Amino acid sequence: MTPDWVKDAVFYQIFPDRFARGAGPLGMPAPLVSHFESWDSPPTLRGFKGGNLWGVAEKLDYIKDMGFNAIYFCPIFASTANHRYHTTDYFQVDPMLGGNAAFTHLLQEAHKREIRVVLDAVFNHCSRGHFAFQNVLENGPKSPYLKWFHIYGWPLNAYERKANYAAWWDNPELPKFNTDTPEVREYLFAVAEHWIRQGIDGWRLDVPNEIDDDSFWQEFRRRVKSINPDAYIVGEIWDDASRWLRGDQFDAVMNYPLGRAILGFVGDGILDRDLAAKSGLGRVETLQALAFSHRLEHLFERYDWEIVLAQMNIMSSHDTPRLRSLMCGDARRAALALALLYTLPGAPTVYYGDEIGLPGDHDPDNRRGMPWNEQYWEKGIYEAVRRMSRLRQQLPLLRRGRYLRLYAQDRHLAFARVEGEQGVVITVNASDEPWRVMVPLHGVWPRGELAVELL
Amino acid sequence: MTPDWVKDAVFYQIFPDRFARGAGPLGMPAPLVSHFESWDSPPTLRGFKGGNLWGVAEKLDYIKDMGFNAIYFCPIFASTANHRYHTTDYFQVDPMLGGNAAFTHLLQEAHKREIRVVLDAVFNHCSRGHFAFQNVLENGPKSPYLKWFHIYGWPLNAYERKANYAAWWDNPELPKFNTDTPEVREYLFAVAEHWIRQGIDGWRLDVPNEIDDDSFWQEFRRRVKSINPDAYIVGEIWDDASRWLRGDQFDAVMNYPLGRAILGFVGDGILDRDLAAKSGLGRVETLQALAFSHRLEHLFERYDWEIVLAQMNIMSSHDTPRLRSLMCGDARRAALALALLYTLPGAPTVYYGDEIGLPGDHDPDNRRGMPWNEQYWEKGIYEAVRRMSRLRQQLPLLRRGRYLRLYAQDRHLAFARVEGEQGVVITVNASDEPWRVMVPLHGVWPRGELAVELL
Repeated sequence: MTPDWVKDAVFYQIFPDRFARGAGPLGMPAPLVSHFESWDSPPTLRGFKGGNLWGVAEKLDYIKDMGFNAIYFCPIFASTANHRYHTTDYFQVDPMLGGNAAFTHLLQEAHKREIRVVLDAVFNHCSRGHFAFQNVLENGPKSPYLKWFHIYGWPLNAYERKANYAAWWDNPELPKFNTDTPEVREYLFAVAEHWIRQGIDGWRLDVPNEIDDDSFWQEFRRRVKSINPDAYIVGEIWDDASRWLRGDQFDAVMNYPLGRAILGFVGDGILDRDLAAKSGLGRVETLQALAFSHRLEHLFERYDWEIVLAQMNIMSSHDTPRLRSLMCGDARRAALALALLYTLPGAPTVYYGDEIGLPGDHDPDNRRGMPWNEQYWEKGIYEAVRRMSRLRQQLPLLRRGRYLRLYAQDRHLAFARVEGEQGVVITVNASDEPWRVMVPLHGVWPRGELAVELL
Repeated sequence: MTPDWVKDAVFYQIFPDRFARGAGPLGMPAPLVSHFESWDSPPTLRGFKGGNLWGVAEKLDYIKDMGFNAIYFCPIFASTANHRYHTTDYFQVDPMLGGNAAFTHLLQEAHKREIRVVLDAVFNHCSRGHFAFQNVLENGPKSPYLKWFHIYGWPLNAYERKANYAAWWDNPELPKFNTDTPEVREYLFAVAEHWIRQGIDGWRLDVPNEIDDDSFWQEFRRRVKSINPDAYIVGEIWDDASRWLRGDQFDAVMNYPLGRAILGFVGDGILDRDLAAKSGLGRVETLQALAFSHRLEHLFERYDWEIVLAQMNIMSSHDTPRLRSLMCGDARRAALALALLYTLPGAPTVYYGDEIGLPGDHDPDNRRGMPWNEQYWEKGIYEAVRRMSRLRQQLPLLRRGRYLRLYAQDRHLAFARVEGEQGVVITVNASDEPWRVMVPLHGVWPRGELAVELL
């Protein structure tokens, strides 16, 4: 039911403007903008650093070497914003990113390396720069796109503080589509179909709960899956997602609840709670081992096991402070959190730069230019991610095995991933002191085959 | 030097929103807008009637039958305006017109019928909805597109009366490109190249004099011609165009001066001068036959003969009142003016609807929906255009022969189109009374071969 490949996936989340800048293969047209902020300077809300998809293509070998076999891209379509969540044209990859040509190239090169590509879609709203909204803005009630939006008054006050049309959080920059209008549905579904036909491996859906209409997402799923039954549909739902995970809408959601639990357990004593609270992570609760395990068990029981294995497990993203900063700079704890992410059920998802310990507070600081000079890398974290990636690749139980708690007390957790008579035992010491204790194996590991020190 | 095919061309100018609405071949996606004005209602400044390129493709046989073998399209690229002179994306045919798919289809079908296609390009300025301008609008001085425009102050007052950036006629809707910026030049040249590679037969350049830079148009020509040496480059220059017609910039210009002369001669006594004066035609001077012929002779001597034969001869367009209305409704005079257009050197250009006597005052009235019910056609004009088209096709002298005045007095003109020992004689009676007079043939027509009553 959920795409099988996702259970074997390790996602790398890329923020296109900040990952890498490339020129593309010889003969490609030069980029047509040059007024970029310096790569290494602190990011600003409105500035661009000029990362592009040619650059990502050049770094695919790095991505592969880190063990990532799927990329989740923050939006790449034409947009006025450096994060590109303000879409102006869903059929065009932003010219600054290299346009459709660069994306086609990237997709080919990624697939050659067996790296899947999932794109980000914002279907609830668009940019006020979107051609349909611009048409209404210019032509008023005469616009053929009139019914594409929810208009409350004329003239449109698109550049004032509060919009006189439905907009995301009343932000006039982001007019909400009227998804009751058949033409709008057709348009958005056509977008979904188009890129699936172009070969992408799935859609990450931005704020899908804002389209409060199950039939919309049901038809979305039918259309996408009828072209590619293996396409992954993952929604940005921060909390309980039962409504969307009955098999007729999404395959999975961004599993922030699991990420929050890891932060609450591994971060005990050091987690910067105020920093976390200012993001969608909210107030992260301190969890001792047993509470942590209970939380996990609850999450693993909430949805079908098929879905649990295909969840996009995530601790940090472009919407949160970076892992390293949440851990107040502590590289060891950051590495431990990542190691947990890799050993729990569901697809680990790493926000670009977290794998080398890049710090970052709130937006825009969490969107720094990826440092390619290795002297700025935190090698402890980097090595841990590479090691865990390989381990997850080598041990199918880490990808498919059920979760079994073995020991949970204070800051110490031992659990197994089991299937049939096979098992892998993971022990976690989330304290700063050594931990020597006998873990009851409950028969999971009868032959005592393999013990690896992960970190 | 000028493309040979233009000398044999008869242009049909189409205003895409108003010519024909079609659904396209089976399997084509349905149009995504439905909120159109009724086809037959008076046009409004901001309304859309929903003509599209599928519709044009369905009418190609009509176009062919009327003897038109080239189409000059008013802009077809993505735009917020019904006339589409406000471009938002030069690489996309407007979705409302059927998008790139419809254009590819149309181009194939047109070429199958040996009909050439010339597109309209506005390179001096774009719409404030253009992605580059929108980027500056949203990001201010941080925008990577900052140098694409001439900015005089912040924040941009794009929705006030007078722009604080360079704009066409200070109209904030139309920011002027900074064509000194290398990236802008590259962008615009890439547009020109792209569509020539897609197979179009030429570019009609909107207000090219506003880009006061010979080197721009010289490079434009080099790039276009290096892909297709036969591409036609025709500028919208309303008066003396010597600067651009030295062989290194345009092949020809829109020959309104010739159109004005015809109107001044044929329209004597009935021409609606006030109506004309409110358009780019300006005050049309009454011309008696001799003055008219002198005017023509001057125009034919002003430029290389090669250029004269390739001029886009035009009396009316989307920028002027319609021919029928300029002639105060008089169908006979309108037909006579068209007949003159077909017998003089240069490519006759007919604004859609003029060939069936559609009336129309100023914008927006001159952009009515083309009536496809023949009962609304003025058959006298319609028949005259078909007959003149065929005659021009049959008689190469009408396309290549030199102009020779034979007789010019009062409202009576006789001239010949001659080449070597061959000649065709045309007599024009621009009065309401019969004209019986002996025309001195000056040896043009020694063998008295053919006399045809054209109208």
